[in-house]
Amino acid sequence: MEITQAAGGVCAAKGFFAGGVHCGIRKNTSKLDLALIYSETPCAAAAVYTKNKVCGAPITVTRAHLSDGRAQAIICNSGNANTCNADGVSKAQMMCAALARELHLAETDIAVASTGVIGQPLPIDPILSNIAPLIRSCRADGEGSLLAGTAIMTTDTHEKEYSVRFSLGGKSCHIGGIAKGSGMIEPNMATMLCFITTDAAISPAMLQKALSADVQTTFNMVSIDGDTSTNDTLVLLANGAAKNSTVEAEGEDFDTFCAALHAVTTQLCRMIAKDGEGATKLLTCTVRGADGQQTARKIAKSVIKSTLFKCAVFGCDANWGRILCAIGYTEAEFEIDKVAVWLCSAGGKVQVCESGAGLPFSEDEALQVLQQDEVTVLIDMGSGSETATAWGCDLSYDYVKINGDYRT
Amino acid sequence: MEITQAAGGVCAAKGFFAGGVHCGIRKNTSKLDLALIYSETPCAAAAVYTKNKVCGAPITVTRAHLSDGRAQAIICNSGNANTCNADGVSKAQMMCAALARELHLAETDIAVASTGVIGQPLPIDPILSNIAPLIRSCRADGEGSLLAGTAIMTTDTHEKEYSVRFSLGGKSCHIGGIAKGSGMIEPNMATMLCFITTDAAISPAMLQKALSADVQTTFNMVSIDGDTSTNDTLVLLANGAAKNSTVEAEGEDFDTFCAALHAVTTQLCRMIAKDGEGATKLLTCTVRGADGQQTARKIAKSVIKSTLFKCAVFGCDANWGRILCAIGYTEAEFEIDKVAVWLCSAGGKVQVCESGAGLPFSEDEALQVLQQDEVTVLIDMGSGSETATAWGCDLSYDYVKINGDYRT
Repeated sequence: MEITQAAGGVCAAKGFFAGGVHCGIRKNTSKLDLALIYSETPCAAAAVYTKNKVCGAPITVTRAHLSDGRAQAIICNSGNANTCNADGVSKAQMMCAALARELHLAETDIAVASTGVIGQPLPIDPILSNIAPLIRSCRADGEGSLLAGTAIMTTDTHEKEYSVRFSLGGKSCHIGGIAKGSGMIEPNMATMLCFITTDAAISPAMLQKALSADVQTTFNMVSIDGDTSTNDTLVLLANGAAKNSTVEAEGEDFDTFCAALHAVTTQLCRMIAKDGEGATKLLTCTVRGADGQQTARKIAKSVIKSTLFKCAVFGCDANWGRILCAIGYTEAEFEIDKVAVWLCSAGGKVQVCESGAGLPFSEDEALQVLQQDEVTVLIDMGSGSETATAWGCDLSYDYVKINGDYRT
Repeated sequence: MEITQAAGGVCAAKGFFAGGVHCGIRKNTSKLDLALIYSETPCAAAAVYTKNKVCGAPITVTRAHLSDGRAQAIICNSGNANTCNADGVSKAQMMCAALARELHLAETDIAVASTGVIGQPLPIDPILSNIAPLIRSCRADGEGSLLAGTAIMTTDTHEKEYSVRFSLGGKSCHIGGIAKGSGMIEPNMATMLCFITTDAAISPAMLQKALSADVQTTFNMVSIDGDTSTNDTLVLLANGAAKNSTVEAEGEDFDTFCAALHAVTTQLCRMIAKDGEGATKLLTCTVRGADGQQTARKIAKSVIKSTLFKCAVFGCDANWGRILCAIGYTEAEFEIDKVAVWLCSAGGKVQVCESGAGLPFSEDEALQVLQQDEVTVLIDMGSGSETATAWGCDLSYDYVKINGDYRT
């Protein structure tokens, strides 16, 4: 199977349109705050959502609308999470109803999402009065993807999109998506917000199967600050415009589809991690030689999440004892005295620990490694053949600044 | 039972001596780095330790020495954790052997602890050559407690001690302790370092029982940054100098002892939380109305640990949605739509949430509450009668600064 990067983001797949406008939820008129993605034709739809018990009203609505495995459009506002409000569900339904009317769709074919402050009433009028301009802003190319990707941003410093081309039964197919992350990122079965489209033909059941499996090693392996958002939502639409023979069971085509999906989600995860609130570096932890997949994942995430190690990375301090410490408090079974650790980046590779104890190393070489903007901690557990990777970022002054006064 | 605050810290109990010196592990000659606490007579001893699988060498030695429920002295250095070093255990044993020689004790009657950088060889000569001056520094009064309490500090900004007087069978008894905290604080059955003494007569088994129960609602309910240290150790020595009838079973005397112990550990926990690295505020979360004790504890800790809420508290931003969010991702069963939340301090009390949804409140009043240096989040789950309290602190620029370059 060949999977190559393609242009177009969430519009890379044929038959999808995307756009975004400033509707007025945000005071800053230069910041887009309402996004739309839709397909010309009906789609199979799959989704994963936050496991937070405080669940955004849009999730309640989207979950109901996608229960039949079908959808055709996604509407999303930023600036307000529409969560912990008594009228949240009815406002989310109003967003769907207004869009359905203009696009001549059933309300139940629309997914809705919101991101922003929790617990403040959603201003619904700016949204309802901007549905027509929103639809007019939509395009079927990379410009449309950029508009939608920008309109879903909160404290993200840049738009995030990725797309690939691959082939199913000789038909050229695409998968592409946009995402927003930044803070409150510790997805539990989903990410903050991610919308992915594909023109591959695939049944709703196989689409959900591919997605549910994929997030275990992608979005669930990202952590910015350990806070699981109330509004995490990932929606995946497949409109079949590529006209491949519909994927309805496991097999070679399904495997290819999963690999292409994984290529997109992995890149979006890296972008989310690297653009974590206040982040100056992408921090990747790869665990190998573990005797279980769960153990490998837990250890990789434990290291990525260590506040102390994140601060050390920000300060380019090779304080590897904090890596060992974070491995040590992971709730999993392993032998710490078999562990080896390396710090790696474009600046080089330095081994700092062997058999669970420190090795002498050059502080200068370690500094060279840590000064790069993408740093990997490689951990060999010395006990098996399982591997896992997790993504996070350093913890900087700016994270504190951004979150010390988020609402104003 | 009457329990009143008393002077003397870890020397409040009769027959205990404490002291501290600068031995040279730290470069800064004005910083004490070696502490000693000992009793004139043998003691019942109890302890709890970190559950981190990467376990400091001193813990291995202390655990063996205290296995008979007896001890008479505690030696502790700061500036180096003696952890993840191939020769760590032998150096910890050397510390005990040298002290045992000078104090004419058995090595196995000595507890040893270390705190500081992980993974750098412990300089043992400065310790061995300063045992005699260390013993000479010891005193049986508050000055001795201050010396020892200061010598165990790392990034703590001030010494921490607390002591109480109470009565068992008409005999005046005391419990007092010193502690250090600051960073890497998420104790799991123990705290960073805490040494408590009592002149009450109590059997080793009942002493351990009292301690193991107490830490569940005290040290295990403190979180600074979610990192569980490799060296957490709490040692409790009881020398019986108060000459009360030895507590050997449950009953009134045991209850009084537990209450006095709880008075000391609660205050030390509050001090550790308030002096968390970079902290500007003590953050307390009290959960009431829960339908289970474990649920109440989990929710209180989840709120205390939320990085996002900690930043909001630092910025005096009444972003209560983050409290709801942190309640929501707690792994426990409860009904979120029964939850009510108040922000409380010496500056007032403001309700921000009822039935799981936001209430209008005065931002000015909320600011008044949050500007105090001790802030409490009160959560009523509306489902039962269980309560729990957890302690933490805000997350500031200084936390990042302190931990960005800890080793230099």
